[in-house]
Amino acid sequence: MAPTAVLLLSCRDRPGIVATVADFVWRHGGNIVDAEQHTDRDDGMFFQRVEFELEGFAVGRDGIREAFDPVAAEFDMEVTVGFSDERPRTAVLASRAPHCLVDVLSRWHSGELRADLALVASNHPDHEDLARFYGLPYHHLPVGDDPAAQDRAMRELLAAHDVQLVVLARYMRILSPAFVRAWPNRIINIHHSFLPAFAGAQPYRQAHERGVKIIGATAHYVTEVLDEGPIIAQDVAHVTHRDDVEDLTSKGRDLEVVVLARALKAHLAHRVLVWGNRTVVFS
Amino acid sequence: MAPTAVLLLSCRDRPGIVATVADFVWRHGGNIVDAEQHTDRDDGMFFQRVEFELEGFAVGRDGIREAFDPVAAEFDMEVTVGFSDERPRTAVLASRAPHCLVDVLSRWHSGELRADLALVASNHPDHEDLARFYGLPYHHLPVGDDPAAQDRAMRELLAAHDVQLVVLARYMRILSPAFVRAWPNRIINIHHSFLPAFAGAQPYRQAHERGVKIIGATAHYVTEVLDEGPIIAQDVAHVTHRDDVEDLTSKGRDLEVVVLARALKAHLAHRVLVWGNRTVVFS
Amino acid sequence: MAPTAVLLLSCRDRPGIVATVADFVWRHGGNIVDAEQHTDRDDGMFFQRVEFELEGFAVGRDGIREAFDPVAAEFDMEVTVGFSDERPRTAVLASRAPHCLVDVLSRWHSGELRADLALVASNHPDHEDLARFYGLPYHHLPVGDDPAAQDRAMRELLAAHDVQLVVLARYMRILSPAFVRAWPNRIINIHHSFLPAFAGAQPYRQAHERGVKIIGATAHYVTEVLDEGPIIAQDVAHVTHRDDVEDLTSKGRDLEVVVLARALKAHLAHRVLVWGNRTVVFS
Amino acid sequence: MAPTAVLLLSCRDRPGIVATVADFVWRHGGNIVDAEQHTDRDDGMFFQRVEFELEGFAVGRDGIREAFDPVAAEFDMEVTVGFSDERPRTAVLASRAPHCLVDVLSRWHSGELRADLALVASNHPDHEDLARFYGLPYHHLPVGDDPAAQDRAMRELLAAHDVQLVVLARYMRILSPAFVRAWPNRIINIHHSFLPAFAGAQPYRQAHERGVKIIGATAHYVTEVLDEGPIIAQDVAHVTHRDDVEDLTSKGRDLEVVVLARALKAHLAHRVLVWGNRTVVFS
Repeated sequence: MAPTAVLLLSCRDRPGIVATVADFVWRHGGNIVDAEQHTDRDDGMFFQRVEFELEGFAVGRDGIREAFDPVAAEFDMEVTVGFSDERPRTAVLASRAPHCLVDVLSRWHSGELRADLALVASNHPDHEDLARFYGLPYHHLPVGDDPAAQDRAMRELLAAHDVQLVVLARYMRILSPAFVRAWPNRIINIHHSFLPAFAGAQPYRQAHERGVKIIGATAHYVTEVLDEGPIIAQDVAHVTHRDDVEDLTSKGRDLEVVVLARALKAHLAHRVLVWGNRTVVFS
Repeated sequence: MAPTAVLLLSCRDRPGIVATVADFVWRHGGNIVDAEQHTDRDDGMFFQRVEFELEGFAVGRDGIREAFDPVAAEFDMEVTVGFSDERPRTAVLASRAPHCLVDVLSRWHSGELRADLALVASNHPDHEDLARFYGLPYHHLPVGDDPAAQDRAMRELLAAHDVQLVVLARYMRILSPAFVRAWPNRIINIHHSFLPAFAGAQPYRQAHERGVKIIGATAHYVTEVLDEGPIIAQDVAHVTHRDDVEDLTSKGRDLEVVVLARALKAHLAHRVLVWGNRTVVFS
Repeated sequence: MAPTAVLLLSCRDRPGIVATVADFVWRHGGNIVDAEQHTDRDDGMFFQRVEFELEGFAVGRDGIREAFDPVAAEFDMEVTVGFSDERPRTAVLASRAPHCLVDVLSRWHSGELRADLALVASNHPDHEDLARFYGLPYHHLPVGDDPAAQDRAMRELLAAHDVQLVVLARYMRILSPAFVRAWPNRIINIHHSFLPAFAGAQPYRQAHERGVKIIGATAHYVTEVLDEGPIIAQDVAHVTHRDDVEDLTSKGRDLEVVVLARALKAHLAHRVLVWGNRTVVFS
Repeated sequence: MAPTAVLLLSCRDRPGIVATVADFVWRHGGNIVDAEQHTDRDDGMFFQRVEFELEGFAVGRDGIREAFDPVAAEFDMEVTVGFSDERPRTAVLASRAPHCLVDVLSRWHSGELRADLALVASNHPDHEDLARFYGLPYHHLPVGDDPAAQDRAMRELLAAHDVQLVVLARYMRILSPAFVRAWPNRIINIHHSFLPAFAGAQPYRQAHERGVKIIGATAHYVTEVLDEGPIIAQDVAHVTHRDDVEDLTSKGRDLEVVVLARALKAHLAHRVLVWGNRTVVFS
């Protein structure tokens, strides 16, 4: 498929936005292959994702943002520009549990994820063979006595590798505010519950104790408040009284894997727009 | 909410459609509140649903189709125009099972369905009290010895009442080709299986005999080929070996009710566009 | 189907329970048509549901509990005895929203619920016609200035009618502790969220504000702590950023109806055993 | 957990079976940790799964089947005896698509599957590195000009390795009748549709052409009739008009992986009993 550009736009709603944006693409010789919009009537906000072919477009990739400036100014828009053939440099972080890591690496290997995996890192040594099997460097940063030092070391490692996207594939450390601020809306976590239920530690144990009949998993951007970031994807599975904590954990693994992958693919396709603490996920 | 117009458009895909349509609305002083498009790359087709406010639009309702003619001609488009405050005259047909009928009437009564119910009709006398409770006329047209005569009588009844939309709420008669042709893409049926599995009679019995672990329901437009019309909505429920035919029937009822309502609401909101034997259901 | 007796048993787990219970039925000439057990290894508890045919059983209905006493004593069991043809006297309480009430009455009317509906009661006058249509008395008990008086009046109404089971079909009043204690594990409520998420008021508004991608409904026994009682059934539906609070409310209605019905049917079939704040729901 | 024995029993239904089986275990000093039964009223059949602790049981593993003979004879039962710590020698067969193979190997590696993987085999050379990574022998048996010879070679390979269970993890060859007969109810296939819909080749293409709104996956035992064997597990995912064949294939992969794993785990836990062309899957 020919490469495309993607505009993610948000502004206060008012008449004429759709026509003005369509006209911008059209005037520059572009062809819109997909456009989807959303109006939040409560907040009076307008959101749009516009994807157009780069071939034949009068402005080069680097100039698109600037060429769009008059439109952005007219409507006081937040704008991000992405490209369908971009592959952000991505780090995958995991702790002990291997299932999300195995899944992300396997999907990436089979070409399903539009990302360049730069490295795998962990507070445990467990996954070195796996990373090597997929030809990826593995960094073991144990926590030891000084959690703050490990957090800083991890942050510096990612910065040194020019990492643009961080995937927490069951990385069981709480990131420092400085870490989180370094990759705003660029750190995706999978939490093993249906948030906001069972935030924090041991969600499957909490779920078992409450006697719920459904468990869930939630992929979200990481913010400074634990488990409170904008939700990208969620899914659930039915459970029964027969399922003990171990069963819930096992069933939950299948959820976590799929929900994390779904969120990652939406993010990489420039389909996720963050607005306050919520997301617009274009289809 | 202020009334809106909805354009449902389909044509061969080519550059410039989105911009031209947006410009059409803009030039006439309209404001697009929702626009969604879909490009089928395999077939090279473009589909769009554009909804804009009528207030301030330079052309009256009756003139919109004609005003759009130049755009339609330029792209060789199929066009339908609908309005958010339209309420098509609707007939609900049922046989013995009451659940779908009860549900449609109850939703209509609570204002959930944007339709004017004109009448309830059946080949059985069972639902007269229910129709009366909701203030609707009830027509009992028994089949007797002459099914063709009943089919014709039903058709004439609906025509005499200027019915624009026909809902088969578990109406267990096969409609004649003449009947079907009189309301093209305007007859919605609920079939009690996950089509194309278990078309025809007694789908729950068929499902039980095959030993499936999931049952389903399918809402579709009726065409001349039984159970082969364009699918609007489907849903499923998990079942086990414990469920006998009666259990499947009971669990299936809850599916049928919800799937039929979902299809009806999409149709009434001008969200369904038929293309060949498939549908585009805008979100 | 021939009538059956159902034993619901719970005790500390130890060897020999299954054989002893099976032997009890067998010795008295009974035939077990269904037996399901569950062992909670964490708590060391044993739970069982045993259903056997009454025909040919050596002891009459009223004598079964006493005949079982030696077994119950041996294992220090909690025992309840139910019958498949029992129809508990049931009151359905609702406030303004009609959907759950309509659904319960319609299912009851079509024979799907093994209960004798004794009355419909509400703090609003809205549903009188509906109750009458189904031949049921309707009691309007407005709250006015004295909520405690209304709570007491409702309680006395139900007691006067020998009500054995109370269904809160979107009855938006918080019951007093005295009310709750009068029907222990005999008051079933439908809460319009996926508990424990969004307990309390306006769960759909809470869900919208948190930006969740899934909404849910929970049927539970009412205890003295609001929204904390043992969960009987839950289900969920996917939603998107397009769904405003009104859309969530509308989609949620379909969930509430089905989840409440599922819980009711399980309760009426003597399939629910409460253990602490959790339930065992036999299949 | 202490090792247990599992009896899977089926016979014509009649009074006394449950008590007699419970008594058998009890008399030999065993303790039933789980018992679940199912009566198919239409066919008049009784099915039971009884799991009891081996510790303290008066008869050794090899003697259990014989000790049970009198009970089996009395009720003319089909009986199989399994053990919780058995690990059947298992072969995993795949063609080009890696996702199911990756998933089975990864689950096995993490201890989730109670099986001894003996080998990986394929009609393609693609997965040799993967098999080696997990320490498993890889056999490449190309089809070439003589499909019958390849089928025979594969069969002989599995026989030579004493394989007891065959997992077709997207192995796209039709097995010969001789192959199927060699492992009756011991070959598990994952079909990438919701059977019986879209049996045969290219189910995702078929699904796209029919315009369904849901896709599915089915795990079943392989019989001599293609895609007609007893179904063990099924699941589905919602799709829309936006999903082309490639999208359906991608979404389907996640279903296939989970459904195959669910079926495998049920089989390995001795929870699946085949009756005619259906299964009883104990919970």
